[in-house]
Amino acid sequence: MSGQTSRGVFITLEGGEGSGKSTVIQTLASHLHEAGHDALVTQEPEGTDLGRHIWAYFRELAAAGSRVTAEAELFLFAAARAEHVRTVIAPALDAGRIVLCDRFADSTTAYQGHGRGLDIATVQAVNRTAIAGCEPDLTLLLDVPAEKGLRRARALETDASKRPDAIGAESRAFHDRVRAGFLTIAAANQKRMLVIDATQPLVDVCKQAIVLVGAYLNSRS
Amino acid sequence: MSGQTSRGVFITLEGGEGSGKSTVIQTLASHLHEAGHDALVTQEPEGTDLGRHIWAYFRELAAAGSRVTAEAELFLFAAARAEHVRTVIAPALDAGRIVLCDRFADSTTAYQGHGRGLDIATVQAVNRTAIAGCEPDLTLLLDVPAEKGLRRARALETDASKRPDAIGAESRAFHDRVRAGFLTIAAANQKRMLVIDATQPLVDVCKQAIVLVGAYLNSRS
Repeated sequence: MSGQTSRGVFITLEGGEGSGKSTVIQTLASHLHEAGHDALVTQEPEGTDLGRHIWAYFRELAAAGSRVTAEAELFLFAAARAEHVRTVIAPALDAGRIVLCDRFADSTTAYQGHGRGLDIATVQAVNRTAIAGCEPDLTLLLDVPAEKGLRRARALETDASKRPDAIGAESRAFHDRVRAGFLTIAAANQKRMLVIDATQPLVDVCKQAIVLVGAYLNSRS
Repeated sequence: MSGQTSRGVFITLEGGEGSGKSTVIQTLASHLHEAGHDALVTQEPEGTDLGRHIWAYFRELAAAGSRVTAEAELFLFAAARAEHVRTVIAPALDAGRIVLCDRFADSTTAYQGHGRGLDIATVQAVNRTAIAGCEPDLTLLLDVPAEKGLRRARALETDASKRPDAIGAESRAFHDRVRAGFLTIAAANQKRMLVIDATQPLVDVCKQAIVLVGAYLNSRS
């Protein structure tokens, strides 16, 4: 999908609710822009019209106290990802840009695999088909205990658009499984995935993310 | 998903545009009801709220001259199917009912695999995950040359809700590939899949479908 020679850099941020991903990604983008890099910030599932459409449907169901089956959820995220990779991420990488993506395939493994209990190998196979080789070069996992993250996320929910969706509204046990899932994925992908302690003050999380991304970019040049 | 002993009978109808599936399925259902059977008629992708939502989105895009990527399309149909199997089809089969379904997994292999050119093994793997063992017992393929089927389908399009969607509006070559795809699938699944010549008058197609379903039901009892 992307020629390796001129290909940009694909960086994903992962983590549970309230881990600070959106603040960290915006800070990272500002820092990269100031350093003269051309960075695109995007997110899943809302990075395409299809993804926004799916996400709006999830919120609509959640407001009615309903949700789709775990398997349908898996395929809907896969559809959003397939569209996002082919129409947004790969073209940006092919143009040599840095892509910063808030959530990617690891979220599906953590939420639909570890969280909902779908077979992990099946989830990974679906992810592979969706991304078609467009693997992240670097993933930062913002790790925070579920209880602390959820408390933080709910404190931010004054904005109606930030109200919990079907997934944010899941049980504490679900979010514990998701966090453990992310750590399991990180342990199995140590070369690609770096864990940041996101219980630190957010400003320190941002600083650490900037240092880690800077070191990664230097190592490539 | 379904105990084999008390399980109902899962019959799918497949075929290209204008092959007469909806008339045949309604005729079959009336016939089965008159014979004292409890038959549920359903369809893909519109058999669930999620499926109707996805189909409406496809129509919306088609009206704007746009469509999602083939891979996203594959996963959206898979999501609709996963939901349909788990919330409609399997519960009806578990209750011992006959399920008559207008389009199922073979349509995805024919349209997204043979039609759009996605890797057939990948499409089949996605289908397997979506249906989780809920295989049709019998499939009737209403075979009609693409040109004849499209002409027939377009003659019926006075009703605005029947206007061509993103898939119906594809090229003649696309529909030729879909037809050939269906015949390839039938050749590889001769025990499950029976081909009916749908260039015959519709009343004869219906009669043949009734005879084939009757023979199948007799063979089971």
